[in-house]
Amino acid sequence: MGLKELRYAAKVDLTKDPAALPYLHNRWHPDIPNCGTIKNGEVVKIECVDWTGGQIGNNDSADDVKNVDLTKVHYLTGPFEIETAEPGDVLVVEIQDVQPLQDQPWGFTGIFAKENGGGFLDDMYPKAAKAIWDFEGIFCSSRHIPGVRFAGLIHPGILGCAPSPEVLSIWNKRESELITSCSHMERVVALAPQPVNVHAGTASEDLKSRIGQEGARTIPGRPEHGGNCDIKNLSRGSKVYLPVHVPGAKFSVGDLHFSQGDGEISFCGAIEMAGCITIKFSVMKNGMAELGMKSPIYIPGPVEPQFGPGRYIYFEGFSVDENGKQHYMDATVAYRQTSLRCIEYLRRYGYSDYQIYLLLSCAPVQGHIAGIVDIPNACTTMGLPMDIFDFDISPGAPVKKIDMGTCAFASD
Amino acid sequence: MGLKELRYAAKVDLTKDPAALPYLHNRWHPDIPNCGTIKNGEVVKIECVDWTGGQIGNNDSADDVKNVDLTKVHYLTGPFEIETAEPGDVLVVEIQDVQPLQDQPWGFTGIFAKENGGGFLDDMYPKAAKAIWDFEGIFCSSRHIPGVRFAGLIHPGILGCAPSPEVLSIWNKRESELITSCSHMERVVALAPQPVNVHAGTASEDLKSRIGQEGARTIPGRPEHGGNCDIKNLSRGSKVYLPVHVPGAKFSVGDLHFSQGDGEISFCGAIEMAGCITIKFSVMKNGMAELGMKSPIYIPGPVEPQFGPGRYIYFEGFSVDENGKQHYMDATVAYRQTSLRCIEYLRRYGYSDYQIYLLLSCAPVQGHIAGIVDIPNACTTMGLPMDIFDFDISPGAPVKKIDMGTCAFASD
Amino acid sequence: MGLKELRYAAKVDLTKDPAALPYLHNRWHPDIPNCGTIKNGEVVKIECVDWTGGQIGNNDSADDVKNVDLTKVHYLTGPFEIETAEPGDVLVVEIQDVQPLQDQPWGFTGIFAKENGGGFLDDMYPKAAKAIWDFEGIFCSSRHIPGVRFAGLIHPGILGCAPSPEVLSIWNKRESELITSCSHMERVVALAPQPVNVHAGTASEDLKSRIGQEGARTIPGRPEHGGNCDIKNLSRGSKVYLPVHVPGAKFSVGDLHFSQGDGEISFCGAIEMAGCITIKFSVMKNGMAELGMKSPIYIPGPVEPQFGPGRYIYFEGFSVDENGKQHYMDATVAYRQTSLRCIEYLRRYGYSDYQIYLLLSCAPVQGHIAGIVDIPNACTTMGLPMDIFDFDISPGAPVKKIDMGTCAFASD
Amino acid sequence: MGLKELRYAAKVDLTKDPAALPYLHNRWHPDIPNCGTIKNGEVVKIECVDWTGGQIGNNDSADDVKNVDLTKVHYLTGPFEIETAEPGDVLVVEIQDVQPLQDQPWGFTGIFAKENGGGFLDDMYPKAAKAIWDFEGIFCSSRHIPGVRFAGLIHPGILGCAPSPEVLSIWNKRESELITSCSHMERVVALAPQPVNVHAGTASEDLKSRIGQEGARTIPGRPEHGGNCDIKNLSRGSKVYLPVHVPGAKFSVGDLHFSQGDGEISFCGAIEMAGCITIKFSVMKNGMAELGMKSPIYIPGPVEPQFGPGRYIYFEGFSVDENGKQHYMDATVAYRQTSLRCIEYLRRYGYSDYQIYLLLSCAPVQGHIAGIVDIPNACTTMGLPMDIFDFDISPGAPVKKIDMGTCAFASD
Repeated sequence: MGLKELRYAAKVDLTKDPAALPYLHNRWHPDIPNCGTIKNGEVVKIECVDWTGGQIGNNDSADDVKNVDLTKVHYLTGPFEIETAEPGDVLVVEIQDVQPLQDQPWGFTGIFAKENGGGFLDDMYPKAAKAIWDFEGIFCSSRHIPGVRFAGLIHPGILGCAPSPEVLSIWNKRESELITSCSHMERVVALAPQPVNVHAGTASEDLKSRIGQEGARTIPGRPEHGGNCDIKNLSRGSKVYLPVHVPGAKFSVGDLHFSQGDGEISFCGAIEMAGCITIKFSVMKNGMAELGMKSPIYIPGPVEPQFGPGRYIYFEGFSVDENGKQHYMDATVAYRQTSLRCIEYLRRYGYSDYQIYLLLSCAPVQGHIAGIVDIPNACTTMGLPMDIFDFDISPGAPVKKIDMGTCAFASD
Repeated sequence: MGLKELRYAAKVDLTKDPAALPYLHNRWHPDIPNCGTIKNGEVVKIECVDWTGGQIGNNDSADDVKNVDLTKVHYLTGPFEIETAEPGDVLVVEIQDVQPLQDQPWGFTGIFAKENGGGFLDDMYPKAAKAIWDFEGIFCSSRHIPGVRFAGLIHPGILGCAPSPEVLSIWNKRESELITSCSHMERVVALAPQPVNVHAGTASEDLKSRIGQEGARTIPGRPEHGGNCDIKNLSRGSKVYLPVHVPGAKFSVGDLHFSQGDGEISFCGAIEMAGCITIKFSVMKNGMAELGMKSPIYIPGPVEPQFGPGRYIYFEGFSVDENGKQHYMDATVAYRQTSLRCIEYLRRYGYSDYQIYLLLSCAPVQGHIAGIVDIPNACTTMGLPMDIFDFDISPGAPVKKIDMGTCAFASD
Repeated sequence: MGLKELRYAAKVDLTKDPAALPYLHNRWHPDIPNCGTIKNGEVVKIECVDWTGGQIGNNDSADDVKNVDLTKVHYLTGPFEIETAEPGDVLVVEIQDVQPLQDQPWGFTGIFAKENGGGFLDDMYPKAAKAIWDFEGIFCSSRHIPGVRFAGLIHPGILGCAPSPEVLSIWNKRESELITSCSHMERVVALAPQPVNVHAGTASEDLKSRIGQEGARTIPGRPEHGGNCDIKNLSRGSKVYLPVHVPGAKFSVGDLHFSQGDGEISFCGAIEMAGCITIKFSVMKNGMAELGMKSPIYIPGPVEPQFGPGRYIYFEGFSVDENGKQHYMDATVAYRQTSLRCIEYLRRYGYSDYQIYLLLSCAPVQGHIAGIVDIPNACTTMGLPMDIFDFDISPGAPVKKIDMGTCAFASD
Repeated sequence: MGLKELRYAAKVDLTKDPAALPYLHNRWHPDIPNCGTIKNGEVVKIECVDWTGGQIGNNDSADDVKNVDLTKVHYLTGPFEIETAEPGDVLVVEIQDVQPLQDQPWGFTGIFAKENGGGFLDDMYPKAAKAIWDFEGIFCSSRHIPGVRFAGLIHPGILGCAPSPEVLSIWNKRESELITSCSHMERVVALAPQPVNVHAGTASEDLKSRIGQEGARTIPGRPEHGGNCDIKNLSRGSKVYLPVHVPGAKFSVGDLHFSQGDGEISFCGAIEMAGCITIKFSVMKNGMAELGMKSPIYIPGPVEPQFGPGRYIYFEGFSVDENGKQHYMDATVAYRQTSLRCIEYLRRYGYSDYQIYLLLSCAPVQGHIAGIVDIPNACTTMGLPMDIFDFDISPGAPVKKIDMGTCAFASD
């Protein structure tokens, strides 16, 4: 009588190479074998490794970030067969809890080197850097960014159901067209299927080889299933409505974040961690048609950290880039400028730009589309909660520049 | 003894042609004569006409929207000389209240025709349309969009100080370069100076003519001074920090909104109204250098309408456009898709797409940059507050499609 | 077409003696003549004088508070006949707005002398005192209590429908029994009907005389109709469900407050003001039976000033009084102790006890019943929002005692 | 390098009789031996049994509640010596997390029989009853009260430092005086020291015997140290400032609640559970004098479940009791009436009064002192969050009475 301890649908062993763990995989493909079955209506716990599979250490050097092997990421837990789920259904995922693993109470935020991964501001900040965050209950703080402390809005960066062969084929086609059309650009614009370091759970070598050829990378999120959407508010208590494309849904989850700012601007920008997520799964039959749904929708949970609206400082940015060039209604350019405005402001307290770049990536900053119709300037804003600092950062308060130490850098 | 009734720095006469009112102007230029002086530290009331200067009527036809004369907009109240303000200072604008004019308790939301103004979704919705909103205290509702009612987050769409000659010259140069470089595009990408229908307050004819040649249009907002930033949260109790570029600051304000959604997607998308704003002005000497400020910053007020986080439905959109084309990290494309996802969802209650397009423009929807680093897909979200509807729009609730009437259209 | 300016159901003339204004009254009685009629579903504006009818001035002496004539209070506007309302119905009162009168942008908070009115802490603070508050848009501040400023949670202290003869008779009987049974106490425990200074609107002299004999005082609130409930959250956007006891409901309203703390501890404790309230009236037929309602219920509005939960300091108090005596589960004793704990804390910044007593009466403090079952100690708490102070009052911050001036006192 | 797993200052063994566990105790006394030492600045985890020490089972009978042995309660974990703490200091307790024990994901709410424990409404509801709550991540629901589900605001009901001999003597004196003075009352008004079932940790038999004679019961909370204050908002992220009365502070904690309503009206009214609390301890030297502190103060955490203000229904109650008798300014009577008003309202959905009584005890209802100066009626309010119900309980929504099953009762 009474609820028993919840079932673990998967437990991870952090002492093993993630590539050897049968309940992990690092590509999206309909044929990755299920690693378990979950009933419609069931609540289970699912453990996840951090997205890099343990490539990053709790230390004061960013060499590991600089040299990270991105062909291996992200290690997701799954796929799980959800009983009764059929294509056209919607899988309702209620996130009842997310926690770090008890014996690993820390996470990391990284800035990738421009030549290996990059990030939103890599033109200005091309070097690898890192901050380690210690978890104290609901709070976190970092020896690499003194003076800040905040409650986590803990969430999975990635969750979704497997693509059908048709959906996968659309992904591969449109992304390869982009790669082709952008071949003149100096940067990687999309990640084509990558046969190296494929992990496809318990797939046979043949199947694994085919998945390497066809399987979609876990970067980026995609409209048809969500995936790597990096939405900071998919936290405790939220409900996500996911399109189902294959029988049994084949649900996977990973890339757990202790906290993230809107945009996750440094790319490895959330506070990345290994952890455990508790989910209740329910199937809404024929849900895609009923909800008119093409992409996931969600409802946030009720326990988000709440600062009063008057406890944020908001910065504004427009579609004029750092060289003074006018772009046409470009919200991406605007958000980059908004981020830079915030960096410029926080400098006055003694932080280095890299420290701030790391901080804006992982602290619960609010990134808004403010105006997107006044040609040619989109206006975006970034709201920085003042109460995460242990000193007063309001514009009217006295300023004292102090020694803020340094974040971790690569040995170069 | 005791505070007297606040001083009106300007009162508007809605029965007159706004082009004849000496305390209005519709271009940005350093030489527009001041229409009054405000002390450092003073609190004043400033009345404003609606941004079109009364071109739109409280009726059931969108002919006025279709035929709006955009060379006349926006009518701003000002400029005001703020005593002691000098270039390099920051003008601190505390918005102590904003109210509609007592004898005009209504506003409008419009969709411009694609060929005259357009909007964020004009490829899909090219026709002119309109909704009239009645104000009942803090709430508004519309006979053109039944079933919704919400409290206004009332704010000015435009406020800022005049550009210096140097700043103005930068604006004109970079925007004309954009116009030139985009000449192949089928749409207007920016508004060059426009000598027709110039209103420059009490300027002499000669000066007015020069302002017509040089003056920047009030569309768009610009990083150097803010201006038309259309930030829905610049509401009661907020504090805005504005760069000062000319002696006396030459502050102007207008384009009052009873409410607006993030993005203001239909362009004439807020609930536009005439009204009165109460502002306290203070000068922060040498503020631009002290705050490291290149663009305005602000702190929201404490009385924003608050729904619990769990009372929003969030829609997701990615950088894959409606034709299935993959774009590279384009948050603008993503936000357009996000908007469409929301329209598709609300259809099931009987609303027409035009009604929803109007609604998302003016209701307090939250538009977020979620992820902007997972190449090639930016992910944006739009949060729709469920409690503005008088029926249950949550995904799990039963749906009954009902007759929602129609918004106003042009007679075509 | 379109909404016209709202109808004023009553406008007050502050230059006249309120006792001469036909749309005011200061007793509860079923026979006070209606001063107007309001349709079921109608929205109207109703102006109110301050509760004392102008006895208190905007000056620096509390002589007026000391000598206030309490036989005159409260001046309520009404009663209004609400069409279709019958006994047993519920009158739904949606408060769409409340504002101070434009030409009287100030209010007052008073501490009554112990021998004339008294208050919650009159044993410790027996002297009359006063603070004047200036309104700047949504904010208020006082020259008598420097260092604080906050947004009003503006509301009526009193609203309700007239009692039936039966209800009135119950009130008179039970309150007179209390007076009799408490005759040994040294204080006034309830206010019996008072023939002096009766104002009964347009009642004939005969009727007025009878109302003086029978009419219930406007102090206190009573369970059968609400009345003087002094609930700070009956603010803009709230909906109150009021029992109807007489045909036409006979609704009255008054005692407008710019702000009030939970408890309104100094009795004249809110920021009292003259103002205008906008109400939408609707009748719920047979509502009392349908809702199982014996006392009013209400739903707050969405625009309350919001501080984050972590921006309050909470003080605790228990049922042990200031003399060390243990009381049995007495929440009133506990709340008095809670108030004293807060006063003791704020002393360290330089405020006098009287200043703090005034402040806790009118600032938006949260008064909670925490535990009421652990015999013999009830525990109550008072939450003080830190952000109303312009210095940091958190327990860990450095303290600097400064000259806080003085509140107004009576001349001897 | 990097934070290690947090230290457990105490782990409980639920398979053992709590009276045999050396790190528990159930009386307040300065001489109970410390069960461990915690450094100033240290973060530790502390496990607690439920307050009854396992007397209540996860089943469908309330016999255990009816027959509970209250001489045994509450079992607290501690006392802990906090290094450097001295009398006059303040112990700052930051609650970084509270969680149920992983292998016991359930809790209970009980109504004690009037003759054994009683509760706030025992005159109306004298029978023993019980509801079992299952925990699903942050949420809980009960098979005994269908239709509701909510996120826990998880907190300790009891925490505090040991009394000094002087403080203990004050407690015993004033409470025994109350018992004497109330000997005519038909109910137990306070709990005198009770030698039966004393648990004093590792105390010798002699010491234990003395503690039984002198030690204060854990019911109630007391102003000098807090203790059993049952404040629902002492949840994750909150900071409590506790007076220190003995060298080393001798801190104890227990009575963990998954959720509680303001007042905890049924006495065993929170969702009682065994669990683990993570605390950071710091000592503020000479804090009592510096803060002017006589009773604990606290600052809530930032992650409280948040409903919008407009998502509560508030009920009002006054100092007129259920027999129609007028009391003088009695907030306790008023809050009892407020509770009854809420019960009467919820009946219409099919709940029994006992189910509602249980629900109001443990759901996050807001209990406010509204007005406490309008003689003779105190007015209190209770806010019921609508969103904890899976149907619409707003006054205007259609009502369907359904079969709500039953809570657990005693076999009688």
